[in-house]
Amino acid sequence: MPIDFAATKARFHLPEGVIYLDGNSLGPMVKSAPDRMARVMQDEWAELLIRGWNKAGWMALPAAMGDRIARLIGAAPGTVVLGDTLSIKVYQALASALEMNPKRRVILSDTGNFPSDLYMAEGLCRTLGGQYRLKTVAPEEVMAAIDETVAVVMLTEVDYRTGRRHDMADITKRAHEMGALTVWDLAHSAGAIPVDLTAAKADFAVGCTYKYLNSGPGGPAFIYVAPRHADVARPALSGWLGHESPFAFDLTYRPGAGIERMRVGTPPILQMAALDAALDVWDGIDLREVHAQSLRLQDQFIKGIETRAPMLHLATPRSHLMRGSQVSFRHPEGYAIMQALIAEGVIGDFRAPDILRFGFTPLYIDEDDVARAVSVLAKIMDYGSWDKPEFKTRARVT
Amino acid sequence: MPIDFAATKARFHLPEGVIYLDGNSLGPMVKSAPDRMARVMQDEWAELLIRGWNKAGWMALPAAMGDRIARLIGAAPGTVVLGDTLSIKVYQALASALEMNPKRRVILSDTGNFPSDLYMAEGLCRTLGGQYRLKTVAPEEVMAAIDETVAVVMLTEVDYRTGRRHDMADITKRAHEMGALTVWDLAHSAGAIPVDLTAAKADFAVGCTYKYLNSGPGGPAFIYVAPRHADVARPALSGWLGHESPFAFDLTYRPGAGIERMRVGTPPILQMAALDAALDVWDGIDLREVHAQSLRLQDQFIKGIETRAPMLHLATPRSHLMRGSQVSFRHPEGYAIMQALIAEGVIGDFRAPDILRFGFTPLYIDEDDVARAVSVLAKIMDYGSWDKPEFKTRARVT
Repeated sequence: MPIDFAATKARFHLPEGVIYLDGNSLGPMVKSAPDRMARVMQDEWAELLIRGWNKAGWMALPAAMGDRIARLIGAAPGTVVLGDTLSIKVYQALASALEMNPKRRVILSDTGNFPSDLYMAEGLCRTLGGQYRLKTVAPEEVMAAIDETVAVVMLTEVDYRTGRRHDMADITKRAHEMGALTVWDLAHSAGAIPVDLTAAKADFAVGCTYKYLNSGPGGPAFIYVAPRHADVARPALSGWLGHESPFAFDLTYRPGAGIERMRVGTPPILQMAALDAALDVWDGIDLREVHAQSLRLQDQFIKGIETRAPMLHLATPRSHLMRGSQVSFRHPEGYAIMQALIAEGVIGDFRAPDILRFGFTPLYIDEDDVARAVSVLAKIMDYGSWDKPEFKTRARVT
Repeated sequence: MPIDFAATKARFHLPEGVIYLDGNSLGPMVKSAPDRMARVMQDEWAELLIRGWNKAGWMALPAAMGDRIARLIGAAPGTVVLGDTLSIKVYQALASALEMNPKRRVILSDTGNFPSDLYMAEGLCRTLGGQYRLKTVAPEEVMAAIDETVAVVMLTEVDYRTGRRHDMADITKRAHEMGALTVWDLAHSAGAIPVDLTAAKADFAVGCTYKYLNSGPGGPAFIYVAPRHADVARPALSGWLGHESPFAFDLTYRPGAGIERMRVGTPPILQMAALDAALDVWDGIDLREVHAQSLRLQDQFIKGIETRAPMLHLATPRSHLMRGSQVSFRHPEGYAIMQALIAEGVIGDFRAPDILRFGFTPLYIDEDDVARAVSVLAKIMDYGSWDKPEFKTRARVT
């Protein structure tokens, strides 16, 4: 049965007069989230108190939520666990992968990776000692750069700036042929495009839930470890909830079974309440259909902008195969243009130095929204109405 | 003005018929928390969407919450930041401290430290390479074990099992004399006892908010770095929000100013909403008075139990100077006894192998509660009513 996008849209709270093309940065709230949260706070935390860990199933939530997300990224049940932030999960995955490939010293990534992934890799290399090195190349040079010095290929599947999509299966295959492992960051993939970690034979994957999975600001991250590695990988961040027997309170660490060892500390139960409500929307939803509809919306937007605002230059690949769920345009005055656009109720975001970024999330964005966004942006460009001091002053977060 | 404990008690939701002596594990909910959460979800997340990071001040929350907590632990404004879990913060503090003491290779801790701290240290030593070592001694042997091989002394101020309290100022002084740095875990201190990190000249401190600070299950942790170290310490977990300029999206890491560099990833805004509501209770509260009242309640409990249930053996030091905010008794059948007690509505917890643990939190526990808890426990011991199969089956979390 095809997705009823009008019905999914009705499940989200969208502010009056706003067209929200920034779900790739922070997803909107599902209408059921406040009630879910209130119930968890009142019926579980306030009434059960410490007993909530057992009686309300809190202790099992990171794995239970992991299973709900697993379906959306082509992972088997029991291979994904929630917790921490994406940066922390990158560190865990990377440290485990490096330890599994002990004769090599190079982490290969690309300049389109989200900077925090690169920073975490840099920090890990420092901690591991001088012999480790992070090497970054341009996105289109990744394949050629995978050689027998590379221990781990660490990439974000969809580029946060341009929306350019790597071929996960191809790159993973090449990495394996060269004796390297892979760490895939699915920040702009999970809930946006069909992902099949199993088919791609990915080794590790990480992702966040507050973008396309709509878990709310600061929602927990997730980590996937391929079943063939799950009992071998050593989590560098060896916290008590990843211990084989956390409540034995042993003085030495023994990693838990499989993916459980990737847990670290006490999980954020309240953030997970919002996530749980948000994931209900995904029941029965096929990501292939979501992505196909996203591509239609993207094409509508690209065509509209290129026709009516040709001074904006497309930064996203034209090929559907190389696209995620966002479209980016470049303009030297991108920051001011985006501020003017937001002032008109069309919310995208700006990424330095010159990128205007727009996310197309069919669960709550439709053709009419896209048509209106095109009109508003074209009008701003026509009248040059971005060229005002109030749009040019940069706030800390954009 | 002395604290009106009846008034503070009225601010908490406490379930009907329950005496809650486990606030040292998970604090109860303040009555204002659900409304605060609903407002943050509806007025900020749902209405502002991505704009919440600026307009609702989300980006500044980790430092703002840090300042609220700083007052409770004797830290100056701008020296504490929120985020992640306690285990992660232990790793950060420890890695920074080791790097600042580069000629030494030993982390000294004690067997009364919370196991996750030891596990994180173990994981860090593995990552740093074979030359680093975690050495643990008995709590009473710590002072003597601080020698010129020790790089970092890492201790939890109040022992999670026995409630035994270290002398932070003395140990820190000794550590500094021997050229070592200190990492203090305040999990059972913050909101429980007067802490003065500044006066003690502590180097690093970490703590959690879901115990005595009542932020709810999985609330974020905090980290303190002494101002003299804050611009020197290198966070091993170098995430983008600790970058000098996160939204420049540079490809290489440059640590942010002072405590900001200890931030890692996107902060948990919803958990922080609950924390913010919970911290309101602390306005104008003097920890010295809270602790003095806690000691009175503890003494009442100890006297009652030793009189009426002498088969339970006190595991907590008798000296007020060596006590935190909890009292523990040992009994070989501790697990079953605690289950029987919980079944009667008196909630403490059990810690393997034989510890019955009770927290005395004057903000919501009073003399009548303690008297009733003593009666119920004494009666259970008198009648041996813990000796039933249903109390002996261990659940995963206790």
